[in-house]
Amino acid sequence: MDEYIERLKDGSLKLYALEKELPPEEAVRVRRAFIEGETGTPLPAIGSFTIGIDRVVKRNIENMIGAVQVPVGVAGPLMVHGEYASGPYYIPLATTGIMRDGMTRAPVFATRDIIHAKETADWVETHTAEIREAAESTTKHGEFLKARTYIAGTSVFVRLEFDTKDAMGMNMVTIASQKVGELIERETGARLVSLSGNMCTDKKPAAINLVQGRGKTVVAGVRLSEALIADLLKTDAETLLEVNYRKNLVGSARAASFGFNAQAANVVAGIFIACGQDAAHVVEGSTAITTVDRVEGGVYVSVSIPSLPVGTVGGGTGVETQHECLAMLGVAGGGDPPGANAKAFGEIVAAAVLAGELSLLGALAAQHLARAHQNLGRG
Amino acid sequence: MDEYIERLKDGSLKLYALEKELPPEEAVRVRRAFIEGETGTPLPAIGSFTIGIDRVVKRNIENMIGAVQVPVGVAGPLMVHGEYASGPYYIPLATTGIMRDGMTRAPVFATRDIIHAKETADWVETHTAEIREAAESTTKHGEFLKARTYIAGTSVFVRLEFDTKDAMGMNMVTIASQKVGELIERETGARLVSLSGNMCTDKKPAAINLVQGRGKTVVAGVRLSEALIADLLKTDAETLLEVNYRKNLVGSARAASFGFNAQAANVVAGIFIACGQDAAHVVEGSTAITTVDRVEGGVYVSVSIPSLPVGTVGGGTGVETQHECLAMLGVAGGGDPPGANAKAFGEIVAAAVLAGELSLLGALAAQHLARAHQNLGRG
Amino acid sequence: MDEYIERLKDGSLKLYALEKELPPEEAVRVRRAFIEGETGTPLPAIGSFTIGIDRVVKRNIENMIGAVQVPVGVAGPLMVHGEYASGPYYIPLATTGIMRDGMTRAPVFATRDIIHAKETADWVETHTAEIREAAESTTKHGEFLKARTYIAGTSVFVRLEFDTKDAMGMNMVTIASQKVGELIERETGARLVSLSGNMCTDKKPAAINLVQGRGKTVVAGVRLSEALIADLLKTDAETLLEVNYRKNLVGSARAASFGFNAQAANVVAGIFIACGQDAAHVVEGSTAITTVDRVEGGVYVSVSIPSLPVGTVGGGTGVETQHECLAMLGVAGGGDPPGANAKAFGEIVAAAVLAGELSLLGALAAQHLARAHQNLGRG
Amino acid sequence: MDEYIERLKDGSLKLYALEKELPPEEAVRVRRAFIEGETGTPLPAIGSFTIGIDRVVKRNIENMIGAVQVPVGVAGPLMVHGEYASGPYYIPLATTGIMRDGMTRAPVFATRDIIHAKETADWVETHTAEIREAAESTTKHGEFLKARTYIAGTSVFVRLEFDTKDAMGMNMVTIASQKVGELIERETGARLVSLSGNMCTDKKPAAINLVQGRGKTVVAGVRLSEALIADLLKTDAETLLEVNYRKNLVGSARAASFGFNAQAANVVAGIFIACGQDAAHVVEGSTAITTVDRVEGGVYVSVSIPSLPVGTVGGGTGVETQHECLAMLGVAGGGDPPGANAKAFGEIVAAAVLAGELSLLGALAAQHLARAHQNLGRG
Repeated sequence: MDEYIERLKDGSLKLYALEKELPPEEAVRVRRAFIEGETGTPLPAIGSFTIGIDRVVKRNIENMIGAVQVPVGVAGPLMVHGEYASGPYYIPLATTGIMRDGMTRAPVFATRDIIHAKETADWVETHTAEIREAAESTTKHGEFLKARTYIAGTSVFVRLEFDTKDAMGMNMVTIASQKVGELIERETGARLVSLSGNMCTDKKPAAINLVQGRGKTVVAGVRLSEALIADLLKTDAETLLEVNYRKNLVGSARAASFGFNAQAANVVAGIFIACGQDAAHVVEGSTAITTVDRVEGGVYVSVSIPSLPVGTVGGGTGVETQHECLAMLGVAGGGDPPGANAKAFGEIVAAAVLAGELSLLGALAAQHLARAHQNLGRG
Repeated sequence: MDEYIERLKDGSLKLYALEKELPPEEAVRVRRAFIEGETGTPLPAIGSFTIGIDRVVKRNIENMIGAVQVPVGVAGPLMVHGEYASGPYYIPLATTGIMRDGMTRAPVFATRDIIHAKETADWVETHTAEIREAAESTTKHGEFLKARTYIAGTSVFVRLEFDTKDAMGMNMVTIASQKVGELIERETGARLVSLSGNMCTDKKPAAINLVQGRGKTVVAGVRLSEALIADLLKTDAETLLEVNYRKNLVGSARAASFGFNAQAANVVAGIFIACGQDAAHVVEGSTAITTVDRVEGGVYVSVSIPSLPVGTVGGGTGVETQHECLAMLGVAGGGDPPGANAKAFGEIVAAAVLAGELSLLGALAAQHLARAHQNLGRG
Repeated sequence: MDEYIERLKDGSLKLYALEKELPPEEAVRVRRAFIEGETGTPLPAIGSFTIGIDRVVKRNIENMIGAVQVPVGVAGPLMVHGEYASGPYYIPLATTGIMRDGMTRAPVFATRDIIHAKETADWVETHTAEIREAAESTTKHGEFLKARTYIAGTSVFVRLEFDTKDAMGMNMVTIASQKVGELIERETGARLVSLSGNMCTDKKPAAINLVQGRGKTVVAGVRLSEALIADLLKTDAETLLEVNYRKNLVGSARAASFGFNAQAANVVAGIFIACGQDAAHVVEGSTAITTVDRVEGGVYVSVSIPSLPVGTVGGGTGVETQHECLAMLGVAGGGDPPGANAKAFGEIVAAAVLAGELSLLGALAAQHLARAHQNLGRG
Repeated sequence: MDEYIERLKDGSLKLYALEKELPPEEAVRVRRAFIEGETGTPLPAIGSFTIGIDRVVKRNIENMIGAVQVPVGVAGPLMVHGEYASGPYYIPLATTGIMRDGMTRAPVFATRDIIHAKETADWVETHTAEIREAAESTTKHGEFLKARTYIAGTSVFVRLEFDTKDAMGMNMVTIASQKVGELIERETGARLVSLSGNMCTDKKPAAINLVQGRGKTVVAGVRLSEALIADLLKTDAETLLEVNYRKNLVGSARAASFGFNAQAANVVAGIFIACGQDAAHVVEGSTAITTVDRVEGGVYVSVSIPSLPVGTVGGGTGVETQHECLAMLGVAGGGDPPGANAKAFGEIVAAAVLAGELSLLGALAAQHLARAHQNLGRG
């Protein structure tokens, strides 16, 4: 093992070229042994895994030393009635729909002055065909949708939007943006400063995503009768309405929040990890709005998720355990037509978020009701 | 297996009481077989795991059917000079510090009118001792820090803050809040509508957390000389400054974002999953601010993470693979003094986020520089 | 006077029908006398005004009792080089440009469920011609630009955008929205709940306006050499850059602000009151972004105002004193072509905001520099 | 007149030293004549004013040329039951209360690195007595309340809060902050970069003000019976609830707004201009939250204004017409005890904003109801 290791001047050690000289299993083993030595920590559990190394090493991780195991449970079934997902996954009559669909990347350009900034933006707005051609030359599956420009002084942001079919699509979109960025640079003389100008906006809470959507924009809703609320949630319509009003609407407003929900991030995080999605995209999922409307005989509860980046091919979706999770939902791999699987998966996530909202709002409302009764009893 | 299953009127199936009648390993096996049958999906990879079932079933997951394996790699070492974490984890001279530390929960109360709202808030502000006593009666480790009140019409939010030592602390704080909530209800006549009033704010992007902090408030910084920038990042100070200025500051401002960083969420998500943290808390981590100051002879780069909920005991930190990851960092379990491990872990996360920012900003700047040179060559 | 007054049961007084029975001057006088009596406050200054009552009573104010006088000063001249405004108003070579132009109103509709919500949004997106026809039937000058839909559960928001030429246009747009709202209600069965659904967004700070613009989207910029910075602002480029970086960018980010400027609202408020604009629109103007770029030999300073609702006809622009202010700027009344005056006025406001930013940033930087020198001297 | 004018090299003109050599009335006249010549615009209306020049020239405006007249009407009376304001100003039983009161200024300091940043913040947190002494040495009336620190990388923001009694207090606070800033600079070695670091936050929409308050934090509320809603607003409780829910709560959430109200800015702007407040502070007033609770037999409506900077002495409050407006409300000049007038004025503004919300929500609801009836009739 020593031949792969060099002790540096500052006393630290460096590992060399394991992948090139060793079979991957061996490289993982050597690297883990090295870390065990350096940190004085035996790592038997991390070292005990069954997922295939080859694929993971090539696509998903650098310097692999093993795997963490995250326990997976099941909930449901939700009964989902979506455009793309339909069938027994359990909440009575939960309907969902994909409202918009488009993955974005927004390179930023530096210009000489605001006149140049406006010229650059104008060029983009009037050369859609060239931009589309450049963008689509880099991808077999992706489809260019639109380019929107934003100016802040001498910085010009070009938000490029694509239909990335069943892929979540960040990679596809970034590669296409590189090509488009070079085109704009060449034609306008603006300098491409960064392929991502943070108006994308990826993995940061940003109002632009709430307002315009990014990835799937999904909504799910369900009607609950008074009887069902009593039976299922052990509370009543009035209490459910009040909890949502004071907590999810007024409370979030008072906290200057971009998320008006009870626990969307919990559900999104759970599903994303299980299904090989990018866990950092939980950020986007957390901006859901939960509403409870009073309707004749009960309530209508909904969640609207303006920005949900999901995919069923690429990224971590191919790791064996994660692939099985997608397969359980019937959405593993590419859809027919292309994009149908990712859309169906988006709908399932929305329905699950709705179930999570009902569950937590219901529990809080039931507690409130219980205390109220107790107090009456006492009084 | 049939004895545990009932076919419901709507055609769906229900599983019964597995945990009570079967040993846990068997329950997981039966449940997985049931799901395999229901979904027509064999789940051999999910079924192949080594983490101990007993603990997981009791504490971390409902209806367990197995585990997903998430490949773990290593980066570093970062050289961290923190108050609590110190040693070779590699970035030259990265220093970090915990600026604040306190986990919050904010129950919401309904009052009769705004007079009653003000009376309720006033009662809270003047009865700290009683509130502390109620809060601390529910926990061995936690320490009550303060109660702040916010009014929106007839809703009164009481944001309770605790030092939760080495635990991330949401459970501890929620239980204490229940007790405090009942006290306030009894003394003021305000109705406790929900234990969480969304001013906590948990797992939603919210300005209140950016401004006041929640969990650890951590900052990490490093000075880079021109030579180091050229050597390590293949770019120069001027370009690094411009990328941060146009992307992380102006771009995020123009997108109305709460996150002024390049990829903090990626690093936080990776570490959180590996180390058994609550993955939904990536939301909070994503609100970091990255700055690049010009200084004599180079730049000073920093990240400030106002709200980082982390713990080294409780939650998923005890699952074997996750525990090993914490052990690798020397922060597994309770610290000495209590809280020191969680603080050290917070500093390590901040230093890693800083490394991630440098890495991505550097790559973007190097690309920009490369294109600039290319264009000069062409011209 | 008594004949116009009734004492109510609760002891308060009510005035009747003054406008119908009295000439306006007399009505104002009676009403003022009544208020003087009721409040025990003589109002000689408010009673001493010269603006024409007839017009004001009909269009600008209810229950007029006189006028407040707001002192007007002049600043400048700025030298503005805009697309629409050009000439000596004094900042060396300040250039400006209108990036977008469109006034919005967003009625909100209630639907039965999320399926109905999607159908309603789909109907809007596919019936642009009918919507345009309904909208333009209500206005001689306004031009329908586009309709964008947003869904939050069962609420559908339709953001209608118009070119309102030289008018600020809120009235025009509201009337047109009423007609469009009725059309949508009739065709889709959705209920028009409110003509304004707060996604307009009028007079509230809202990210949707920052991102998409509302009213004029204007940018102004100027290049300052080191010599000019020293001469004019008594500071240097480095200090100016640092003040803008730490205050306008990092400080605003840390405060979770939607405004990244030093004092845009001061300038906007001053001009708006002088020129008869709606003073509540200062809110929108306050969301400007100020940037300072380092350029060869100095700096390039800009302000970008994403949402500036201005007009040169309608509203308070016709009151004599306000009209004179617009006339001083050469933009009173309707432009040729229609819309040119309002655009020119928008550019002048942007140039003035830029001047205000330079002035305050310069002063802060000069103070900093002075202290720095002082400290060196002391040291 | 020519002796005061110089033609510059670029062709423009400059006026000299009018105030020093001429009586103020004459200076205003000469300056106006000059502007009339330069712009070719006669300014008879602006030139026709009655407010006293001496005071205005010294305190309120530079380069005065006259005054604009803004028509003033009256509304009301509201019946306000506040802590400080009480009496007939008309809405049945509107109660108000000042929840917090403190004006802020937040200088920003540059430090060497994050260690120095933390040391600086720690120094501030542990030297309250010295800071208070420095702050209060600059003011007869103001009272230091607290200093809070925020770190973003190497920038340290110190948010200083004062009780400014009957003054709005920005000037007082700025002067005190200068003194405190110099103290901190001397003691910690941090550089005071700008007296305002934008975490104040003045005249920009910023979450820090929503959450922590700035100026007065005021709430106003009123209970309306079904009969009163029908009589006064021509609608019913259910419709009022729905308009507020879909417009002010869901609509503002979907627009990523910091204002959850219908038209608070209109009322604030109107009163602020009439009463000599700083019109740029309309920005802060626009962030109100309006709530409608269902209660037994009707609704409870409230507005909460977290940040309302008002004063009854200083600024424009002394101009004759504006002073009369304050006098009409019984709050002109300093209160007894000091601060009581500004607090009473804050309560009156809140009650007026509440009246404005009721008026507009009522109108929207009545329209909706009318359409609903019409449709039923048709159907």
